[in-house]
Amino acid sequence: MDHDVISGPRGSAIERDQTDPLAPVRQAFDLPQGVVYLDGNSLGPLPKAVPKAMAQVIERQWGATLIKSWNDHDWINLPSRVGEKIAHLIGAGPGQVICTDSVSVNLFKVLAAALRLSARPAKILSEADNFPSDLYLVEGMNALLGAAAPAFEVAQTDALLECLDESVSILLLTQVNFKTGAMHDLAELTARAQAVGALVIWDLSHSTGVLDLELDAANVDFAVGCGYKFLNGGPGAPGYLYVASRHQGSVSQPLSGWMGHAQPFAFSQGYEPAQGVKRFLSGTPAILSMTALDAALTVFDGLELAQVRAKSEQLGSYLIHLVESIDGELELISPRDASQRGSQVSFRHPLAYPIVQALIEADVIGDFRAPDIVRLGFNPLFNSFADIEQAARALKTVLMTGGHLESRFSAQKLVT
Amino acid sequence: MDHDVISGPRGSAIERDQTDPLAPVRQAFDLPQGVVYLDGNSLGPLPKAVPKAMAQVIERQWGATLIKSWNDHDWINLPSRVGEKIAHLIGAGPGQVICTDSVSVNLFKVLAAALRLSARPAKILSEADNFPSDLYLVEGMNALLGAAAPAFEVAQTDALLECLDESVSILLLTQVNFKTGAMHDLAELTARAQAVGALVIWDLSHSTGVLDLELDAANVDFAVGCGYKFLNGGPGAPGYLYVASRHQGSVSQPLSGWMGHAQPFAFSQGYEPAQGVKRFLSGTPAILSMTALDAALTVFDGLELAQVRAKSEQLGSYLIHLVESIDGELELISPRDASQRGSQVSFRHPLAYPIVQALIEADVIGDFRAPDIVRLGFNPLFNSFADIEQAARALKTVLMTGGHLESRFSAQKLVT
Repeated sequence: MDHDVISGPRGSAIERDQTDPLAPVRQAFDLPQGVVYLDGNSLGPLPKAVPKAMAQVIERQWGATLIKSWNDHDWINLPSRVGEKIAHLIGAGPGQVICTDSVSVNLFKVLAAALRLSARPAKILSEADNFPSDLYLVEGMNALLGAAAPAFEVAQTDALLECLDESVSILLLTQVNFKTGAMHDLAELTARAQAVGALVIWDLSHSTGVLDLELDAANVDFAVGCGYKFLNGGPGAPGYLYVASRHQGSVSQPLSGWMGHAQPFAFSQGYEPAQGVKRFLSGTPAILSMTALDAALTVFDGLELAQVRAKSEQLGSYLIHLVESIDGELELISPRDASQRGSQVSFRHPLAYPIVQALIEADVIGDFRAPDIVRLGFNPLFNSFADIEQAARALKTVLMTGGHLESRFSAQKLVT
Repeated sequence: MDHDVISGPRGSAIERDQTDPLAPVRQAFDLPQGVVYLDGNSLGPLPKAVPKAMAQVIERQWGATLIKSWNDHDWINLPSRVGEKIAHLIGAGPGQVICTDSVSVNLFKVLAAALRLSARPAKILSEADNFPSDLYLVEGMNALLGAAAPAFEVAQTDALLECLDESVSILLLTQVNFKTGAMHDLAELTARAQAVGALVIWDLSHSTGVLDLELDAANVDFAVGCGYKFLNGGPGAPGYLYVASRHQGSVSQPLSGWMGHAQPFAFSQGYEPAQGVKRFLSGTPAILSMTALDAALTVFDGLELAQVRAKSEQLGSYLIHLVESIDGELELISPRDASQRGSQVSFRHPLAYPIVQALIEADVIGDFRAPDIVRLGFNPLFNSFADIEQAARALKTVLMTGGHLESRFSAQKLVT
């Protein structure tokens, strides 16, 4: 007899894993033994391809070939090469995606670019429930612009469509809500925005690598996304940005550093933007961090995102099913309909913080989001159905035994 | 009999190296055998401490400790920790330097910050011979600001003081000219700018780690600098920025991402800047690239920058002496007075490009700067007097044998 605390057939997770076509991909990751990692949406785990690639870029390229590596190892085109790999994952044709800087910096660039493309008087519409940093960036840009700043409206999510009228020139949204996992219909909202003459900027940080995105087909104008979540590029990996081909001839961005110049090594006076999306580069690319992301992206070789997305939906629905079989203490705040949910499931609980800490002690790593959210994210490339079952089991044990009530779990750490 | 083509006593370089107190520091670098590397001002070589630090951050921290490393390995404070190490090298007291983003992005941040601090109507003064990217950034900011943009005057260097009058609100200069190595008097120009009521922004990319900087003593307002030149942080290493304590309470910057928020993990609505220089952070720090820089900075442990500067002056003067003993083909365009020169010596020659290529083939790596400059940089931490002698010897051999006239050296590579 085992100590099964989850109701339902014990074998179902094992059976699901046995028939999961993505199960072998887990071998591409170096995951700590015994850990169920449900925080790949904060920081993807280490792909096995990374240490070797890093040793090579550090010792052979930087160490042995020194400055000549800009040519000999084509560092100069790394932002484009990595950009094209990401383009492949988001339904973008060539020449529209570049890897550079952080999501925050990239968002500033595309915000300013969209602002200059759009007719005045400009107005940016976003939602109150957007990732706060995206709203901070609009605040920052507007403070710089002073009297010339666009209007900035932040709508409640259920009032978003109502607010999306002809006064709006830029719609700025994050596709997957970082707390609830609720997912916007990217194609539908893009069409709605364009129908009122607005440009759309999507933050795809919680989407890229796990959703079956089709940016070109949806006629998206601009997008940014993260390299260290579902792309597993390592802590603080550079982000990417997408600029639709149709805008590239007329668009400009204010962080016009030399790497975005048409001829960076001519050192000519006067900025002349590079052709295409390269004009969104600013300073020298972070070759070391970007090489880690480049290597991490090999995990996707030969995979179909539709398959990844399908498994993500199944993992989430399975998790909801198991957790709801525990009892009513945890309130589901993610959409129950998998088609409206990103790759995470979140529950509300007044003791969410100590619950997450107790789970971590039990080797189930999820995370807490203030003030009361237990957030469990999953990446179908390495998470199994058995992981989901083990997480639900640990959660039940914590709640049944009151493990989260122990005082050592109550003091919040700096980063939660 | 050897093939000595340099006139003068053969032993002098060896003697100088034998009495050089910095000579042992070369052992801290992993330099390719037989190569004379005179391009550390473009990309510093690999410090031996880096590969081990990188393996640790990748395999133990990211791989094994995953998301918990933000707390357990204090990733969250890495930008401040590395910033303080750099502060120590530039004469800055604590709390004024942070490591983040690229020089370009950081320059945009301090430009916008200075602009908001300064009285209107604003005017930025720079020099035509500044590093072009710094001027591109002003162009980019001004294009965004449109009608509200500050005036922007770009003076010839010899007219700079004349143009520095009460109409100027921001003086933007790079201390060491990237082509000629000519060095501005940082303290003098800072005082002159402040005497007319202007703020000063220094780009210290070609200064940091090789000059004996005293930013606090000179009462500098803002500065930015590079992590991959004389700090040896690796290709595209993050840069740093300096904001004088006296401005920190009243200053803001437009790239206001979550990492610069007072409580980044509260995810609260509305941007509230962090105390101090941390408000100049934007997105998630590039932990991998920044760890390489962190490890690289250990090379400076226990060194005095005054000693580094003294050797830099000697290396430069020795190089000029040897090259001028060759013949008159190469025109010195760097200041002959070492006290007015950064850590490089540049010569003009109509065939500069093929000369540099021929030198590289002879394992003397310098670089070419358009249209006709041979640029030889040196870092006293690893370059010896013997390196200088070998470079001069190779240069003489190339010029005497016409090695640079071979056709394979004429086609310019992408990155030069």
